[in-house]
Amino acid sequence: MTGVAGLLGEIAGIGRDSARGGYSRQGYSRTETELREWFVAHAERRGLDVRRDRNGITWARWNPASVDGKAIVTGSHLDSVPGGGGYDGPLGVASALVAIDLLAARGVRLNRPIDVAVFPEEEGSRFGLACLGSRLAAGAVDPSRALALRDDAGDTFADVLRRDGLDPAHIGADHELLESIEAFVELHVEQGRGLIDIGQPVAIGASILAHGRWRITIDGQGNHAGTTLMSDRHDPMVAASRMIVEIRDAACAVYDARATVGRLVPVPSGTNVIASRVSFWLDVRHPDTAVTASLVSRIRDLVARVGAEEGCVATTTEESLSPTVHFDAGLRSTLRATLPYAVELGTGAGHDAGILAEHIPTAMLFVRNPTGISHSPEELVEDADAEIGAAQLADVLAALASPGPRAPHPPT
Amino acid sequence: MTGVAGLLGEIAGIGRDSARGGYSRQGYSRTETELREWFVAHAERRGLDVRRDRNGITWARWNPASVDGKAIVTGSHLDSVPGGGGYDGPLGVASALVAIDLLAARGVRLNRPIDVAVFPEEEGSRFGLACLGSRLAAGAVDPSRALALRDDAGDTFADVLRRDGLDPAHIGADHELLESIEAFVELHVEQGRGLIDIGQPVAIGASILAHGRWRITIDGQGNHAGTTLMSDRHDPMVAASRMIVEIRDAACAVYDARATVGRLVPVPSGTNVIASRVSFWLDVRHPDTAVTASLVSRIRDLVARVGAEEGCVATTTEESLSPTVHFDAGLRSTLRATLPYAVELGTGAGHDAGILAEHIPTAMLFVRNPTGISHSPEELVEDADAEIGAAQLADVLAALASPGPRAPHPPT
Repeated sequence: MTGVAGLLGEIAGIGRDSARGGYSRQGYSRTETELREWFVAHAERRGLDVRRDRNGITWARWNPASVDGKAIVTGSHLDSVPGGGGYDGPLGVASALVAIDLLAARGVRLNRPIDVAVFPEEEGSRFGLACLGSRLAAGAVDPSRALALRDDAGDTFADVLRRDGLDPAHIGADHELLESIEAFVELHVEQGRGLIDIGQPVAIGASILAHGRWRITIDGQGNHAGTTLMSDRHDPMVAASRMIVEIRDAACAVYDARATVGRLVPVPSGTNVIASRVSFWLDVRHPDTAVTASLVSRIRDLVARVGAEEGCVATTTEESLSPTVHFDAGLRSTLRATLPYAVELGTGAGHDAGILAEHIPTAMLFVRNPTGISHSPEELVEDADAEIGAAQLADVLAALASPGPRAPHPPT
Repeated sequence: MTGVAGLLGEIAGIGRDSARGGYSRQGYSRTETELREWFVAHAERRGLDVRRDRNGITWARWNPASVDGKAIVTGSHLDSVPGGGGYDGPLGVASALVAIDLLAARGVRLNRPIDVAVFPEEEGSRFGLACLGSRLAAGAVDPSRALALRDDAGDTFADVLRRDGLDPAHIGADHELLESIEAFVELHVEQGRGLIDIGQPVAIGASILAHGRWRITIDGQGNHAGTTLMSDRHDPMVAASRMIVEIRDAACAVYDARATVGRLVPVPSGTNVIASRVSFWLDVRHPDTAVTASLVSRIRDLVARVGAEEGCVATTTEESLSPTVHFDAGLRSTLRATLPYAVELGTGAGHDAGILAEHIPTAMLFVRNPTGISHSPEELVEDADAEIGAAQLADVLAALASPGPRAPHPPT
């Protein structure tokens, strides 16, 4: 039986980014399609029933005894941030396949179907809205707003869906789907240092920080870099720089807050040209929804103030905002009983599980990342930890989908 | 006879940039070739003898009496910055053609040939080195260094030259060319507010500020925007922002200095990713070479200090540096005698005339820009000023290339 590391090895060559390092597996791209085809081939080899729903989520159902009833769902995503690691997303998909192999090998009898889901555009790297597939299914984004989103090439989400064989008229809230799910458990690489600090391979997700994205656009006056006196300038790059420094300082002043600017685009972007416009994207997170809102409000104020001080006009536009998610208490209790050695950890990262948690009982498993670094080529999962994670996911799925006695595997 | 405005109208549709506004006419691109073909067609229609030299400079010779001797050269460039205006470069080329028409119509007899030159990649928007064509001819850049320069698509200058039908082995200093030139007079749109302030249509160039370009690269630690505590970060975007603010402040503290950051590229450029690397380009200018050097030295120090304070490694690389150019005193004296109403103005902008000034007597004419804005779609020349500029250029060329009595045209 191929393990998690073996499965990930099969896709190690897909979507490599030689310029940035690591992987750039953009949503709805040829690369993401290739990864989905790899998943579908594996699902079909295991006799799973595969379908792609109207929001572009791929489902593979394992239901050997053809039982009825709501499904237990696991899975994750296959897209990545630009220059990301190989585990954020694919680890959960590969572990789901291996967990099914383990349950089949153990001869576990199911009283519920088990579905493996692959969600599109989880990172939001193409259209700026993270968890786009699960947001659509959960009704957490208006379809008309989603369809009008544009990628860097200027294509709308509607254009891209059509090219991908999906009908833009059919996207949106899928109540029938949500009602058919008993519980969702997403396994994911840990993206911080929590498991390093406690020396454990796997943790149970407790909560997801409140988080959101804002686009800040600063309009100044483009002009010649050599002929425009410093005193005559309305330079949006200087304004953006002052804002980024003040945003960092504002985040540092709030315990456990994070604020990041990782993307900035000057226009026209010439060395000998004062920019006419600078846009940058702000990512803010905190364990508490209200504290997040208050920090963002302070940032909106400083953006407007600094923009005006530099003779520019600055606007802040919310692209997404997700409140703090506390995973389902009952489901967490089942997971704790099944994995008695696992601790509970919160996370600063958003996930499809966080979106779906508003509608269905949802939980997460985190697998240790020995570098503590994610969204980077340095993201890592040791092979042994990956196999332990899949085995513990199998235990959890058995506990949720099988009437039989539980046989938890202690961590090694 | 078609005037300057009419000629520029013929190319108004070439190289428009719908995203940035204005024009993006990149060096060695299909767009620049199209503009060059337009120029060649006009030159041939006037019976000019056209050739392209081994450094990619296009020459069109007007020599109706087939006289020998060194040539009087005028002309400019056809490439633009990204999202630039329609006058920076093309005004000088169109004015040269109209000036020849005026001299022909006046029946002026030449005792020297007149050449119109079109220089490639004056803005350096593609390979980062401004005035690349004139620098090569003047021996101001080492050919092997130039050939290794890369554009944003990753192509080397050598690749691009080959595709453009030029032989990379043949580029470099062209002493024979320099020795064949008696004087060079470049007409150019003014890029500041000098002529607005004095209410005149045309000025004589006095000097070009010392100026240069530096690339600053900051290496930090890429990581997840949600899971990495503020205190654990080595964020090159924050470091770059602090540097840009300090660079602005440093330039403001030096009278008549200008320092600009108009281009910044984060890697990997994801909204939910702390950048691993940020590169930005710095443009510094001052009337005095030594003051420029001292300001750049202060900037190098602050870059290194801020980089270290943010836990990053920052390096500053010089891409080009041109000392202050004072245009030829004898030639300026001839221009003042020919255009007695014109004042003399310095400029902060670099020009091919500045590069050639080290080897041959060189002068410039500036034509009023009523917005005072350049390197922007808002750059402007009124039609009436453009025609006055061409007429005064004709007077200057007549004074330099004809033995006959001078007939200066007073400004209108």
